[in-house]
Amino acid sequence: MGSENVKLVSWELSPVGRRVEWVLKLKGVDYEYVEEDIFNKTNLLLQLNPVHNKVPVLLHHHKPIAESLIILQYIDQTWNQYPLFPQHPYQVALARFWGTVADKLAKTSYDAMCRSGDEQEKKVNEAVEIMDKLEEEIMGKKFFGGEKIGYVDIAFGWIPWWLPVWEEVGSMQIVDPLKHPAISAWTTNFLTHTVIKDNLPPRDKLLLYAHGRKREFSSALSG
Amino acid sequence: MGSENVKLVSWELSPVGRRVEWVLKLKGVDYEYVEEDIFNKTNLLLQLNPVHNKVPVLLHHHKPIAESLIILQYIDQTWNQYPLFPQHPYQVALARFWGTVADKLAKTSYDAMCRSGDEQEKKVNEAVEIMDKLEEEIMGKKFFGGEKIGYVDIAFGWIPWWLPVWEEVGSMQIVDPLKHPAISAWTTNFLTHTVIKDNLPPRDKLLLYAHGRKREFSSALSG
Repeated sequence: MGSENVKLVSWELSPVGRRVEWVLKLKGVDYEYVEEDIFNKTNLLLQLNPVHNKVPVLLHHHKPIAESLIILQYIDQTWNQYPLFPQHPYQVALARFWGTVADKLAKTSYDAMCRSGDEQEKKVNEAVEIMDKLEEEIMGKKFFGGEKIGYVDIAFGWIPWWLPVWEEVGSMQIVDPLKHPAISAWTTNFLTHTVIKDNLPPRDKLLLYAHGRKREFSSALSG
Repeated sequence: MGSENVKLVSWELSPVGRRVEWVLKLKGVDYEYVEEDIFNKTNLLLQLNPVHNKVPVLLHHHKPIAESLIILQYIDQTWNQYPLFPQHPYQVALARFWGTVADKLAKTSYDAMCRSGDEQEKKVNEAVEIMDKLEEEIMGKKFFGGEKIGYVDIAFGWIPWWLPVWEEVGSMQIVDPLKHPAISAWTTNFLTHTVIKDNLPPRDKLLLYAHGRKREFSSALSG
C-alpha cells in the first residue's frame, strides 16, 4: 500500500478528476487522495499546475502531471494491467479523437446550462448534434471500449451522472432516450459498473453547485 | 513514391494543417496533398471528419484521422524515424500537456485579434500570462525538444509565423522581445530550419485573411 507513490490532487465534484480515480481503481493502483478547495486554491496547486491552476493533478514520485486525458494516457503507459486503449495505432488515434470530443461536448453542455433563451438554444443544438454522432458510435456495443470500459468510456463518464444534473438546472434536454437509445443503454452499463457506481459524487451536492454556478453566471451578465 | 498511401487534406493558410506537413517532411514520409476549400467545404471533408468538419484530415490507407495533435501522435507511432517525443513516459506527458497549452494559447491570441477595447485587453493579458510561462520553459534550450525540433515545437509552430500577423491585424502585442527573449530566439531557430522555412504560407495571404476575419467579427457584433 502506498508503495506506488501516487498522489491525486482533485475536487470531489469534478467530473475530470473522477476520470483519474476510476482509472486508478480499474487498474488497482494504490494512491493517496488529496482534496483541493477549488474556491480557495492552495499554493500546492498553483505550484503543481502553474499554467492552468486546475484539478486534477497526479503526482507520481512527486512529479506532477496535469490535464485529465493526459494523466489517463500516462497511467496507461506506466501500469500495464487493464489496458485502456485498443492495440492498433489507428484505433488509438480514434480513441484519442473521441476524447477531445468528450471535452468539447462537456464544455458546450455546461455552457448551455449557464445560459438561457436563444443563446442556450444554440448551445443545446450544438450539443445535440454531437450527441447524434455519438449515438452512431456506441450503437451495438456495450461500451465504447467493446466488452469493457476503456479510455473513451472514461472520457464520456460525465454524461451518465453530471449531464442529468446540468439538464435539470438548465431546464434543457441534450440526451433524448428516444433519439439516443444506445447512449441511454450505455449510461446504464457504465453506471452499474462496480468501480463507477462506488466512485460518484453525491447528486445533491452536484445540484447545489450547478444551481450556484447558473445564478452566478446570470448575475454576472445582468450586473 | 506514394507507396506509403498517405493523403493530407488541408488548407494552405491553416497553422494546424502545417503541423502535419512539417512532421511528414521531417520524417521523410511521402504524401499526396489535397487542398480543401474551407469556404465551400466538400462532401469529402464532411465525410472524413463528420464531428467537426475541419482540416487537417490525414488519410492512411484510406482511413481518416482528424485533429492535428492526434495526427502527429499517430504519425510518430507509425513511422519511427525522427522521433517527435522524448523516451520517458513522464516527459511524454509533459510534451502532451504543452501541446494542449499550444492550442489554447492559439485560440486566445486569435480571439484577441478579433476583439477590441476591454475585451481585447483581457484576452491579450491571458495570452501574455501563458507566454510568460512558455518563456521559462524554453529558456536555455535551442528547441523545446532539445537540440532538434520535437512535438512541442511543432505544436507552437504558429507563434513564429502566424502570431505576428495576428498582432499586426489586432494592433496588439503578445510576444515582447524584451520580456520574452528566449521565445524570440526560439522563433528564429524554428523559422530558419530548412523544413519549416520552405513550408510556410505567403505572409500577404495570411494578412488578407486575418483582416477579413476581423472585419467579419466586428460586423457580426454590430449587425
